[in-house]
Amino acid sequence: MTALLTTANWSSSAWMKDLRTADPHRKFVLQGVDDYTADEVRYALTWKPPEGLLASLPNLEVIFNLGAGVDAVLSDPTLPDSIPIVRLVDDNLTERMGEWVLLQVLTHHRQSLTYLAQQAKAQWRERDQPIASEVRVGFLGYGVLAQHCEKLVRATGFETHAWSRSPKSADIPLYVGDEGLPEFLAKTDILVVLLPLTPDTREIINTKLMSGLAQDGTLGGPFLINAGRGGLQNEADILTALNNGTLKGVSLDVFETEPLPADSPLWSAPNLIITPHCSAVSDPRTVSHYVVNQMAAFERGEPLQNIVDRNRGY
Amino acid sequence: MTALLTTANWSSSAWMKDLRTADPHRKFVLQGVDDYTADEVRYALTWKPPEGLLASLPNLEVIFNLGAGVDAVLSDPTLPDSIPIVRLVDDNLTERMGEWVLLQVLTHHRQSLTYLAQQAKAQWRERDQPIASEVRVGFLGYGVLAQHCEKLVRATGFETHAWSRSPKSADIPLYVGDEGLPEFLAKTDILVVLLPLTPDTREIINTKLMSGLAQDGTLGGPFLINAGRGGLQNEADILTALNNGTLKGVSLDVFETEPLPADSPLWSAPNLIITPHCSAVSDPRTVSHYVVNQMAAFERGEPLQNIVDRNRGY
Repeated sequence: MTALLTTANWSSSAWMKDLRTADPHRKFVLQGVDDYTADEVRYALTWKPPEGLLASLPNLEVIFNLGAGVDAVLSDPTLPDSIPIVRLVDDNLTERMGEWVLLQVLTHHRQSLTYLAQQAKAQWRERDQPIASEVRVGFLGYGVLAQHCEKLVRATGFETHAWSRSPKSADIPLYVGDEGLPEFLAKTDILVVLLPLTPDTREIINTKLMSGLAQDGTLGGPFLINAGRGGLQNEADILTALNNGTLKGVSLDVFETEPLPADSPLWSAPNLIITPHCSAVSDPRTVSHYVVNQMAAFERGEPLQNIVDRNRGY
Repeated sequence: MTALLTTANWSSSAWMKDLRTADPHRKFVLQGVDDYTADEVRYALTWKPPEGLLASLPNLEVIFNLGAGVDAVLSDPTLPDSIPIVRLVDDNLTERMGEWVLLQVLTHHRQSLTYLAQQAKAQWRERDQPIASEVRVGFLGYGVLAQHCEKLVRATGFETHAWSRSPKSADIPLYVGDEGLPEFLAKTDILVVLLPLTPDTREIINTKLMSGLAQDGTLGGPFLINAGRGGLQNEADILTALNNGTLKGVSLDVFETEPLPADSPLWSAPNLIITPHCSAVSDPRTVSHYVVNQMAAFERGEPLQNIVDRNRGY
């Protein structure tokens, strides 16, 4: 049962090596490099597959998405209707995301940019500093990644709460749906966005949402952290919010256009931290095992795990 | 039973207000401001008391130190021999220290200075990034503050271990005494120093110690974080280590001379993060309750908690 790999801009040699190590008995072929027939491909292991590729495989049985977020796969208008798509749920990726989100929360909370700017001027000046328990961190989206990040942020001492599109169990205050959003935002000093990109969430980070964040918090203004998708944010609105004081600071790992163009005004915006979509990369060593194990279970007749609900879009 | 307050450069009005709120029935007097007789003072509540002050109080029964670290009190050559000194053990201060140490560990681990420098050049470039579990954080000193920091760092995914002058119980690998130090250092990628300042620990952070840190780690070189006392470090040695590559990065919250002089070469050293001794400030609201409760217990005939062992120096 041949598996076809497409990795877009990722290092395909590392992926091929780790897949073959994880399952030496399966035939893996690399799209655009190895010879294969469309008929033989039963599995597609993909990150941002070329449009039309998946539709060209008549015997395809499962699509495995290799990164966190299936928006790129679902945006292909030729995507076959009936093939199950498996989301990536990977502890390694989840833990990396936790590191990045916690770092950004602490960086803003403890005023790192202010202290670095003072250091550049050889200035010794202590700033007023609330303790973490006086700061409210709100998670917009409460899936696997957000739940892990929330646990780390809470363990560090922050007060936490979350917003979810639909009800789910949680041991923190959970606000649900359109009705719950205003109260969620009004109680949020640091907003962490970890939503999937769907038609419903596109540009959800806009002037209206940012204006709803807490203005009475102990940090002197709200902060925004987006580690989801660039399509979730309106970057012109973020710039406006930074410049007019609606936001006190921002961390972005994702952008409308990636790589972020060199002439983007975001690069030099005040109190904005940019990282190059590196918050949580897929590690081929661990993801290969996840995919190989699922293929083996599928061939034993067991159900697939973490299948995408196409109606929800994630 | 009158309590005399000395606060050095701290805001004495906040302290007086919070002490009087915590115990409205006791007489608190502020040194240098309020009238009092030396005879009436039974308690000294001090941060960096003027030399000779404590010796001038004939009926003094207890000295409460208001910050973390008693080196300033013990350095007074006129300090009376027989008066118990109570160390500050304050959850609020401990939690603030945890925030700062975890922030510095993550800042170096996730290469924040490198990414900020790239951002300043509008450069989109992802860096190789180990996951936290591949990075070893070692705590030099394993008292109350270090134990809390270690728990947070471990919860975030890092591998941790500690060094202590004397044996104590620990659920992580603990290296003990002079014999244990070389192996501890050789396994440490990020060194966190949270030792008391005593004659034994003065300038313990020197070329010899830094040269013993792991050179084979996943971060490409060792990092140093000092949140203890400036007297623990030889700053010329740290500059040398940064310049010759013995250290890859450093965070310092404490300095040989504070405030750090404007002409110190540390301000502009590469890969060095400076904060103005703000890692864990004493919050008068919580410390006042700690002191007031101990005075009341003492007057009920109960034993004092957290008495300094003058032979150890902490």
